[in-house]
Amino acid sequence: MNTKLKWLREKIKMLDMQGMMVTNPVNIRYLTGIVAEGILLITRKENIYLTDSRYIEEVNSILTIDDGIIVHEFKDFSKDEYENFFLFCENVGFEEEYVTYAKYKQYMHQYKINNLQETEKIIEKQRMIKDEEEIEKITKACEITDQCFNHLLEFIKVGQTEKEIALEIERFFKTHGAEGNSFEPIVASGKNSSKPHAVPTDKKVDLGDPITIDMGCIYQGYCSDMTRTIFVGYVPEQIKEIYDLVLKNQCQTEKELKEGMSIKILSRMVENDFQLHGYDLVHSLGHGVGLDIHEYPFLSGKNDNLLKANMVVTNEPRYLSSWKIWCTY
Amino acid sequence: MNTKLKWLREKIKMLDMQGMMVTNPVNIRYLTGIVAEGILLITRKENIYLTDSRYIEEVNSILTIDDGIIVHEFKDFSKDEYENFFLFCENVGFEEEYVTYAKYKQYMHQYKINNLQETEKIIEKQRMIKDEEEIEKITKACEITDQCFNHLLEFIKVGQTEKEIALEIERFFKTHGAEGNSFEPIVASGKNSSKPHAVPTDKKVDLGDPITIDMGCIYQGYCSDMTRTIFVGYVPEQIKEIYDLVLKNQCQTEKELKEGMSIKILSRMVENDFQLHGYDLVHSLGHGVGLDIHEYPFLSGKNDNLLKANMVVTNEPRYLSSWKIWCTY
Repeated sequence: MNTKLKWLREKIKMLDMQGMMVTNPVNIRYLTGIVAEGILLITRKENIYLTDSRYIEEVNSILTIDDGIIVHEFKDFSKDEYENFFLFCENVGFEEEYVTYAKYKQYMHQYKINNLQETEKIIEKQRMIKDEEEIEKITKACEITDQCFNHLLEFIKVGQTEKEIALEIERFFKTHGAEGNSFEPIVASGKNSSKPHAVPTDKKVDLGDPITIDMGCIYQGYCSDMTRTIFVGYVPEQIKEIYDLVLKNQCQTEKELKEGMSIKILSRMVENDFQLHGYDLVHSLGHGVGLDIHEYPFLSGKNDNLLKANMVVTNEPRYLSSWKIWCTY
Repeated sequence: MNTKLKWLREKIKMLDMQGMMVTNPVNIRYLTGIVAEGILLITRKENIYLTDSRYIEEVNSILTIDDGIIVHEFKDFSKDEYENFFLFCENVGFEEEYVTYAKYKQYMHQYKINNLQETEKIIEKQRMIKDEEEIEKITKACEITDQCFNHLLEFIKVGQTEKEIALEIERFFKTHGAEGNSFEPIVASGKNSSKPHAVPTDKKVDLGDPITIDMGCIYQGYCSDMTRTIFVGYVPEQIKEIYDLVLKNQCQTEKELKEGMSIKILSRMVENDFQLHGYDLVHSLGHGVGLDIHEYPFLSGKNDNLLKANMVVTNEPRYLSSWKIWCTY
């Protein structure tokens, strides 16, 4: 059985559960590599993946005997057989933050489960610590994003629209080995760069404009997330001070990103330095990145946890102002 | 108060509910025009939209007094005030197919609701019948898609990859008034055109290839969905027969798409004609289109309802084979 499934079986045993229904497709991909529509059942005897005829061939081509997962079609089972999956199971875990109320009721009825037990994102929390293969994929996604940024420095010219630049980002990703954007890119120039969730517009890039670019790609399921602020032609005097403040904090944070560091202290350090200079930190300092673009851990002053080895997080100090500057990775 | 909210208040009254929590953002957009993160509360006295500080300004700029909606920030209210929203309400409706089990529990606790009652997609069902403004927007989305198709007929050349064509589709939409794709376009050429959910690849388009293009855009929130099969250079002899069969069925269906027509009979007519010629109909004959790319009604042999005036549906007969031909609108 693969390492991640072994971990899950151990974990639910510790939590006094005799089985689990995994339904969030991102968690299923993490545990099995499967990208399809279906449900993973961790039962007392077996790990079972249920799907429909559209995906059977692809799923079977991904899994090996070592994965320890048996694949079936939903329609293979009778009413009785569904009710037998979790026979003699007192508590069966489910993903209460993913499953709708309607599905919860359906599962209770269809599988005749004694107690569907909340699992409090155990899999999402485990996903914080990346293994070697995951780190390789995220690194590759970051490399493609770096290449894209270098390409943009050549590509962007006065008179281009934000939309044109955003489309070029996606084109670059899709033609350089990535599956596509990990989120809709933000390209915000001039005054638009102050909008928190700016959508690229038909505004043309002008001399002296700061351009905030927030972009990322997906490589084999794993995301990158990069923000850079660049300037067209020259850097306006009034922006230099704040740009340098943000950059200093980003560099400082990078040095402190190590095992055992308190997330709260890390975040407060930036908050304090910003406030000392009369600015406020926007949102949080960063977030985990992996199969989801935003995942655990969230780097904020309210997080009481410590950083651990092999976490992957963004480092994105930014301040609140009508001219927001991000210089993050 | 706007017509749609008036309808909803009447509807829940009929269902013996004294209030409703609307949480699906697509339903909120339908009822109010608001595009943001928040919750719409239909209470006994008022319609209240709760959101956070990021959206307040934008939401207030959209709504007018006529909408009859009061906007507040989540943080404006104390624990007691949350519990008062649905005071003296016996039954409060919620969207059981959208709300997660965790949120359901949170709402029960936070709003101290006596009975959160399932509403069985009442809003989604109402969305089947489009008003004039909605039809205008869908028409506009279809027009942009038509223009894109005409553009592609000029654009596509032997040697281009499926990916390049898919990127051109998105570029065209985004630079011709649409917000973007309503779904990731399918561009499947040659043997790839047999895959049910083909992702555009690096395969180059070759002479004699059929190219299946399934694409759509979003205009002011409303979707279009168009599939066409074209041929590069010439039409291979073996495909002509099935192409004509599919086209005949599409034209026939178009004639029958009118008020009072049985969806089941409509679908069975195509199924039967396909079977008569030795083919099977894939999935269903079509589906509703609106704020969602797939919505009610679903045109299948299992749907017992009749077509009504101002429904908007796709007409997409296609058959199951290693060479799938779609010629749909």
